[in-house]
This record gives sequence, structure tokens and C-alpha cells, in this order.
Amino acid sequence: MTAHGGDRLCEAIDRAGSPACVGLDPVLDRLPGAVRGADAPGSLEAFCMGVLDAVHGAVGVVKPQSACFERYGSAGVAVLERVCARAKELGFFVILDAKRGDIGVTAEHYAAFAFDAMGADAVTVNPYMGFDTIEPFRRDGRAVFALVRTSNAGSDAVQSAPAGAGTVAEAVARGVASAGESSMGARAWSDLGAVVAATKPADAARMRELMPKQIFLVPGFGAQGGTVETVRELFTDGAGAVVNASRSVLYPEGVGADWAGGIASAAEAFAEQVGVAARG
Amino acid sequence: MTAHGGDRLCEAIDRAGSPACVGLDPVLDRLPGAVRGADAPGSLEAFCMGVLDAVHGAVGVVKPQSACFERYGSAGVAVLERVCARAKELGFFVILDAKRGDIGVTAEHYAAFAFDAMGADAVTVNPYMGFDTIEPFRRDGRAVFALVRTSNAGSDAVQSAPAGAGTVAEAVARGVASAGESSMGARAWSDLGAVVAATKPADAARMRELMPKQIFLVPGFGAQGGTVETVRELFTDGAGAVVNASRSVLYPEGVGADWAGGIASAAEAFAEQVGVAARG
Repeated sequence: MTAHGGDRLCEAIDRAGSPACVGLDPVLDRLPGAVRGADAPGSLEAFCMGVLDAVHGAVGVVKPQSACFERYGSAGVAVLERVCARAKELGFFVILDAKRGDIGVTAEHYAAFAFDAMGADAVTVNPYMGFDTIEPFRRDGRAVFALVRTSNAGSDAVQSAPAGAGTVAEAVARGVASAGESSMGARAWSDLGAVVAATKPADAARMRELMPKQIFLVPGFGAQGGTVETVRELFTDGAGAVVNASRSVLYPEGVGADWAGGIASAAEAFAEQVGVAARG
Repeated sequence: MTAHGGDRLCEAIDRAGSPACVGLDPVLDRLPGAVRGADAPGSLEAFCMGVLDAVHGAVGVVKPQSACFERYGSAGVAVLERVCARAKELGFFVILDAKRGDIGVTAEHYAAFAFDAMGADAVTVNPYMGFDTIEPFRRDGRAVFALVRTSNAGSDAVQSAPAGAGTVAEAVARGVASAGESSMGARAWSDLGAVVAATKPADAARMRELMPKQIFLVPGFGAQGGTVETVRELFTDGAGAVVNASRSVLYPEGVGADWAGGIASAAEAFAEQVGVAARG
């Protein structure tokens, strides 16, 4: 793996024809009856393997939610390993949503978790402990997405707090933009990206202004309220963002026995919508 | 487990006679030769089990660093499970240092990781996504420590940024103090505590002023520069803080074959120093 992490993500998007990402957030009591059994981690594994096959072709990026697997301890983490490995075999760009953050050598351990143990292409990180704590996660060929502006209503209590001339999120955005300058790809995007929610459209243009070289990982499409209209502002000339949907793709309404077919259709519709948003 | 998480921590400190906590941050290439082998997770397990026996009696609280185990994937997480279980058997209060943080149901998954899968008594969390994201971690009988002021030099870039009339860390401290009011124990401490570093003495009095009811989890003693002088300010009438040391206890200098004896002696000296600091 010698290419730049940002370039590799752009290529995965190009191959799929849409900057859409499907989040793998498996929750036992929402799984189709056909895969839901007494063995919870096994049920998650059967579901996720089916999802990977179902969305393959429609999207080029998947985002496993580490928490959904970790809740089952080592057995769940073993499933996450196999799901990530299968996603890589199928050619997906894998963003491990782990939101880790710690100092120095501890951050190096978390990077090893994401990139060596799980084999992910990218990982989400939390910047609260400082921009230096992001650096141990950065590696040639991989990408990192720092939390900047998140989709939950309560995030305003910290991220919208006034800080200097703007908000805390704006101060963090400036720090991420500055740190990201150290590794720019051929596509002119940094390998240090940012998580910027689709549910706060008023912030979107400001975030792009402050982080012109960050690829945005955009959660909140579909079930969390993000729409074509709210994500449109996050793209620059059709690029620079990857939009995630989880629940609206994983658990489409009105699907019977052919759950995988329902997910495939939902992924295709989602990828098409995001493609429209990207083209402005 | 029906008692209050803050009360249970106070009782563990009382039993040991010192508010000292030993951090379990095992790193393969620093382990004693007697336990270091080709099987990295197995080496970590042998070391941590030895450390638990060695520090038992001197301290009542241990803090496994999740990252050190996670770096080995599911095999490492399986070791973490067994180390936490053994620590509970020995009567330690177990603080899982995982620094997790996410929204709503995802935070619930992480709480299940810490409390159900690992069986910890407390967990560290990251407040960047808002104070509402801390709530899913709170449970009867358990405790939560939110990152407020951390020990790394680079943390100033975010935590010392001006926010309103103070800094970002001060704004977070106010939010943690407010959220913590919902569950006060018989000892008059909340079950929502705060991580406040020992390496920033200038901040210590201010943090205590803003968070009078938070038990402080204080990293940075020993190898990171914290001393009796720098932690003294964090106590209120000899209580309200638990001070962690990792490297200075796990890897004492000048120890030969009797590595467990060296760790036991280092833990005793550390517990004595922290006791002196607590008494003012």
C-alpha cells in the first residue's frame, strides 16, 4: 500500500460512481429473522457478510461501527476482524468508526488496533486531547477523520461554545486544516479528513471555508435527517466528501424474506441520491 | 451491585488506605524477560496477572489501558476480559481507560463493552460530542470519568483555547459539574468524575472550584512529571481524587529477576506518596 490515503479513497469513490458509504451498525434486535439467533456475535457476522455482498457495486466505501461489535467483547471484536477482512477482499475502502483518542504511545496502540489488527483503510478519531494526539494515527496509504462537527443535538453544548472569534468547532477545524497540510495527495486532498454532520447545514459552508483540503466524512444521511439538500454544500466541484447512511440502508422498511435484496435496493437508491447531491 | 459508584470508589480507597491507582499499560518490549515471549497477548496476560498480585494490598484501584490490549485485536481483548475479571476477584475497583465517546445508541454499545463485556466498575469517556453523550455510560453502582484537562503538552491547543469567559476546559468542567448533580452519593461525591492532569498545577485549583463534587482521576504521576506537590491541590479534605501511576510502578528501575517484588515495592512507595499528598 504505497498510494496516498486520500487518493485511495477518491479512487474507491470513482470506481463506485458515487461518494456514498454504508455504515455497518448491526444491532441484534433489528436484524432480519433469518440471521438472528441465540449467538449474538454470530448473528452480527452473518448479517454483515450479507450486507457486504448486497451493497457491493452500489458503494465503494463501508464504515463498520466498532462499538456495535465491541459490546460483545472479544467475540464481537473477532467478528469485526472478519468483517473488515471480507470488506477488503471485496475491494471496499474500509473506514473503522472507532472515535479513538489518547496521548502519544497510547494513540499508537489505537492506530495498531485500527490498521494492523482490523486492517482498516481509515479511522475516525477524537481531537479533544489536542492535534498532536492525531499524528500517531497518520500512516502512508491510510486516512484519518477527526471529529469536528457532529450530528447530535447535544453536540452544540461543546462544539458551538464561543471560542475566540468563532466556536470550538471552528477552532478545531482550523487545527485540523493546519495539521492536514503535511500530507496532501495527487487529488489535492489531505489524508487527514474531518467528520462534519449533514444535519447542521448552516455550518456546512463555514466548515468547507475553514477546511478546504479536508475530505468530509458526513454522517446523518437518512434516518438522522440528512438529505440531498443538506449535504450538497459539503461538496467542492463534486468531490471532497463521502456521505454515510446506516439505518436507512441496513433496515429498509417493508422488506420481507429477501432482506439482502431490500438492502441492495436501498443502497442503490442511496448511492444515486448522494451522486445527485455531489453533482450539485 | 446497588451502592453508588462514587461511594464504592471511596470505599476501595479507604480499604487500601491510599487514593492510589496503578495503571495497567503493558507494552511488550518493556515486559520482564521472564514473561515476554513470542505470544504477545499471552505475554501481556502473564505480566498483568503478576502485577495484580504484586500491587494487591498497596492499592485498591487499577486502571487497565484498553488500547494496550486492543492493539492485538480480539486476542488482546480476550486478555483484557480475563485481566478485568481477575482484578474484580481480588477486590480491586477497576477503571477501564477507554476514552470512548459517541452519540446515543452507539454510546450505549460502548457502555456495554466497558461494564458488561469487561465488567469494569468505571470507564473514561470523551466529552467532545456533548454532555448528552456521557449519559448512556451512567449506571447505578458504576462511575464515569470525563476527560476535562489532560496531561499532554499538545492538549492546550484545544483545552486552553479561550471560550467565553474562560477556556474550553473550563466550559467542559462546568458541563460535567452540572451533569454530575443527578447522582450524588452518600460520600457527597458524584458518580460522574473528571480526568484532571497532575502536570498542570496552575489549573488544579480552578478545576476544583468549577467541579466541587467530581472525583478527579489524576494521570501523570511519576513518569509524566506529576509529584506530591502538583497533586496536593486536587484533594479536598484528603478526598475527591484518585491518582494514577503506570510506568513508574510497572517498570521500576534496577529490578532484576524479582520483577514482581520490584513492582510491589514501587506500588507501596507510590501509594505512600499519594497518601502524603492527600493529607495535604
